[in-house]
Order: sequence, then structure tokens, then C-alpha cells
Amino acid sequence: MSTVEAIRYEEGVLSLLDQRALPQEETWLQIQDPGAAAQAIRDMVVRGAPAIAITAAYGLALAVRCGFDRSEARALLLASRPTAVNLRWALERLDAVADGAVEAEAQAIHAEDARICRTLGDVGADVVPEGGLYTHCNTGALATGGWGTALGVVRSLHAQGRPVHVYAGETRPYLQGSRLTAWEMVQEGIPCTLVTDSMAGAVMASGRIHSVVVGCDRVAANGDVANKIGTYGLAVLARYHGLPFYVAMPLSTLDEQCRSGEDIPLEERDPSEVAGFRSERTAPGGVGVWNPSFDVTPADLVTGWITEQGLWRPG
Amino acid sequence: MSTVEAIRYEEGVLSLLDQRALPQEETWLQIQDPGAAAQAIRDMVVRGAPAIAITAAYGLALAVRCGFDRSEARALLLASRPTAVNLRWALERLDAVADGAVEAEAQAIHAEDARICRTLGDVGADVVPEGGLYTHCNTGALATGGWGTALGVVRSLHAQGRPVHVYAGETRPYLQGSRLTAWEMVQEGIPCTLVTDSMAGAVMASGRIHSVVVGCDRVAANGDVANKIGTYGLAVLARYHGLPFYVAMPLSTLDEQCRSGEDIPLEERDPSEVAGFRSERTAPGGVGVWNPSFDVTPADLVTGWITEQGLWRPG
Repeated sequence: MSTVEAIRYEEGVLSLLDQRALPQEETWLQIQDPGAAAQAIRDMVVRGAPAIAITAAYGLALAVRCGFDRSEARALLLASRPTAVNLRWALERLDAVADGAVEAEAQAIHAEDARICRTLGDVGADVVPEGGLYTHCNTGALATGGWGTALGVVRSLHAQGRPVHVYAGETRPYLQGSRLTAWEMVQEGIPCTLVTDSMAGAVMASGRIHSVVVGCDRVAANGDVANKIGTYGLAVLARYHGLPFYVAMPLSTLDEQCRSGEDIPLEERDPSEVAGFRSERTAPGGVGVWNPSFDVTPADLVTGWITEQGLWRPG
Repeated sequence: MSTVEAIRYEEGVLSLLDQRALPQEETWLQIQDPGAAAQAIRDMVVRGAPAIAITAAYGLALAVRCGFDRSEARALLLASRPTAVNLRWALERLDAVADGAVEAEAQAIHAEDARICRTLGDVGADVVPEGGLYTHCNTGALATGGWGTALGVVRSLHAQGRPVHVYAGETRPYLQGSRLTAWEMVQEGIPCTLVTDSMAGAVMASGRIHSVVVGCDRVAANGDVANKIGTYGLAVLARYHGLPFYVAMPLSTLDEQCRSGEDIPLEERDPSEVAGFRSERTAPGGVGVWNPSFDVTPADLVTGWITEQGLWRPG
């Protein structure tokens, strides 16, 4: 499908491409028990809502294989990160599966996700205008079972030979745009320009882009979208500039139990991520820090929700 | 006035606090010729439109003192950075001054700027609402002759015992918010919370702030404002959230020769600033980068222009 993959599973060993070290180093971690899988999610070795779900599914398969208490392993994995709902979706899907079939079902979730992304990408390519496309965070093969969600739309446009130029916001504090999206685009030979998040307004005002396309971590029943911090600001800017704002959303990201964005738990992470840059501290001691990892974009700012079954509508 | 200063001059030696190393190190560079002054501006040892103007004025004083060709030194200093108009303003003011009086005039420009900022801060404190105040980049004592412009408003509010809590956007790629604004606020004991630039929308939606106040590098006759990249996006977000958006503007920042923002030259800096931080590269090789240092906020997004002579109005 795409040339990039981040999750492999074989014979009781889950291998994860350590996304913390990209793009400088391509290191694979080998994981053989559910505790290590949960920690890899928590520590962001793997990130992206669909990739987290796949990793958790394999984590449960490892629990069964190693004879861990299955319900304890499930609770551990479920608690690893709070915002992405795909994680819960995958674990609930496995609840209905007998021990002997968990591993095969995890592999099915993985393979299905790659197929879903490919379909979703093609759906998106039919609605997203050609040309400049601004995206945020990383929603590519690294964040999914393959192909990607918002970057899946980019890959489908590119695969169809249609012109697409990605403007990637670097996505502070964790720099998924700079480190991961830019890396994927270079790997695939898709034109990509990196900017700081603060440049999004200037990019839009300059006429360089024709759409904003993002992924999501959880979508409420009313269409409100929880996604990487900064998404909401992009939606407001897109509205001001008359640009379409699309959310690429596998249906596993829909949480009908959340009526609106107010019901979605938003993770806050360690202040050190904002107070510095990797290991380098930049802010002075004594300053306060706020570090929410996600924000909520209200449905009325969303032009369309792109899914593997076509465009979705709230209600 | 304030406890922070960044520029000192005595007997032919200009001392600059090296703002590239803050807040980790407080190092002073000693400068004795105009070439070194121009380089310090270009390399961002000193930054901020008023501070650049003061440094250039002292640079010309050093030229006269050392017997350099005065017009060559003037050209060198004028070319050091293109966007801030205060630089040109200071050099034009010195054009009318005989050699023997240049040093004293440079010192007058320095002292006046601190007084102007204090007055401007008090003007701003009368119009900006108390409470949470979002700001961008660094506009404090480090960026001026003392007190600051947007941060001067903060200092005046604080000095009057009125409640103010600064939300400082970190201001990628150069992190003036994280490194400099946060440091000044800690030095002064003014409450300050640091966020990434991408969090501005979430901060506004959360109800934490009651105004956005920024500085400026050049204001056109129609009121369009060139300021640090990201300012324009903040103005759009403020409008969407019904928050007042104020520009703190010493009158030396007004350029009547520019009819609108389209006439203002916007500096683009080295791609490496966006592709990493300091010596640490984060983006992969092969990716494109756009690195404009400034953007233009149209006058219709500005609630008020705060100057040392009260609120200014275009025209």
C-alpha cells in the first residue's frame, strides 16, 4: 500500500517503530507483554488514534498468549491514553472474542484499518480540491495500519496523479508534523512544505492552499471533533478565509456515547513538553505551563467528515 | 523603571545582553564598532523594533567615535534587518545631527524610548481589560529601552495593583515568548502561563483571557500592522471569540510612507530555524520550509492602537 509502516506483529512479538526518534533514527522496539504495549502507547512510541487501537489489540493478544489476566490487561491498555476512542473500540471488539481467537482478531483489526484508510483516502480525493492542502500533526501510515487518514487523502490524490502540495504545521509541542508528516512525505516523494503552527494564518492569506484536512481522535454524535491541539484554531482560520475544512475519520473514531465535544475527555500532558524542546529546556523556571494535547472543534466549523463509507453527517 | 535591561552604553562601549542565550545564560556582549552592532541586530543578539533602533543609534555613535565613514555605517546598520521601521526612524533622526552630538542623541533616543514605553503602558492600562491577557513574541524591557510595549501595558496594570495574568505564546521558531517573555514575567513576579502557539484558540475558547495585546514592527498609514509571524492568526481568533485585539505602538513604529500592509517588506529568515531548534535538527532532509518572520494584520481586525499619545486612529 504505502512504503511506510510502523507496526508489525509476528509470533508473539509486536514490533513498533519508535516514533519518538524519527526522523533521525529508525529504531524498532520489540514488545512481548501487555504492560510494555500500554507503556509504548503512554510514552508515544506509537501515536495516532488508529495506530493506538491496533497496538492495544496486539497488547491484548500478547496478554492471552503469555497467560496474563485478560481483564487486568484490558484495563491497563484502556487507561494508557484517554482521548482517542478507537482504543476503546478495539478493546470492545475483542471482548466478544474467545481467547484462542484474539490474536487473529487483532491482526484483522490491523489489516482492516489499512484497507479502511485506503477507501477513506479515495473518498476524500473525490471531495478535497487539488492543490495546496494544509494539515496538522501526523495522520499518515505511521498513525494508522497504513496509508493514513488525512494523509491518506493526500496519498490517494497523489496516487491518482493529481496535483497536491502539503503544507505541514510542525505541531508543537511534540512536532509530529515536522518529524513524522514531513518524513512520510519525503519518503513518498509528495511535495511538502514545513511551517510553524503560527504560520497557518499567513499560509492561508497568501493563497497557497485550497483546503485544510485533519484527522481526529474522537468525534461526538453531534459532529464535534477532538483532535490534536491547534486543530480548532485552524478551523477558525479556514472559516475566516473561506477554505473548506475536512476531517478524515474512520468510523471507529465516532463515539455515539458522547453527545457533544463537552463529553470528550481531553488529555493534558507533562508541562516539560511545552517548556522545552526534546531534552533542551527553553523556558525559565517558575513560569506556569498549560499543556492540553487536544482541543475540540465544533461541528459548525467542519465542511465535511470523510469516512470509509462516504461523507458522514451528524444525526 | 523595570528590573530588566538589555542595552547599556558607556564611553564608547555598547553592551548588549545576548538574548539568544536567555534564559539559561545572562551573557553581555561588548560592541565597539558599527559592523559589530549591525551583526548583533542581524544575528538577533538584540531584537524588538525599539531595541533595534536604539542599538543602531549607538552603532552610528560608535562609527563617529571610531572615525568610520558615517554614511557607510548608516547603510550597513539600515540593512541589518528589513521589517522594523524604528531602525530607519532612528537613523533618519541622527541624519540631522552633527558628528559631535550623535552620541548624546543616541543616548536621548534610548532614554526617551523607556519614557515613551512607560507612558504608552499607562495609556494601555486604561483601555485593556483586567484579567487574562494573551500576548505573542517578546515586547518587554528586552525589546525596548525599558518597560516594553505590549508588556509595558502588562507592567502598568501590574504596577497599578490591578489583576493581570499573561498567557504567553511560545513564538516559534525563535521562542521569544518561552525564552524572553516568560523570563521577564518571572523576574517581575507577574503571573504568566506559557503555551504553544497552537494553543491560542483553546485558551480563548476556555474563557481564560479577556484581551490580546501585541507589539508591532511597522504600522502602515491605513493601520495595517506588521508584527511577528502568528500575530495575524491571533487577530482572526480574537475576532471570532469577540475579544479585543490591541496593538501597542510607539509612534516611531508608524510608517506614513507605507499606505497599507502590502507596502511593508517582510523578512524571511533561514529555513533551519523552522527545521529544528538551535543546533538540534528535527525535520528530515529533503522537506521544503517556509520561514517568514512577520505577517500583516489588516487594520479591520485591530480594536485599538495604543501609543504614547493615546489611542491612534488611521487617517
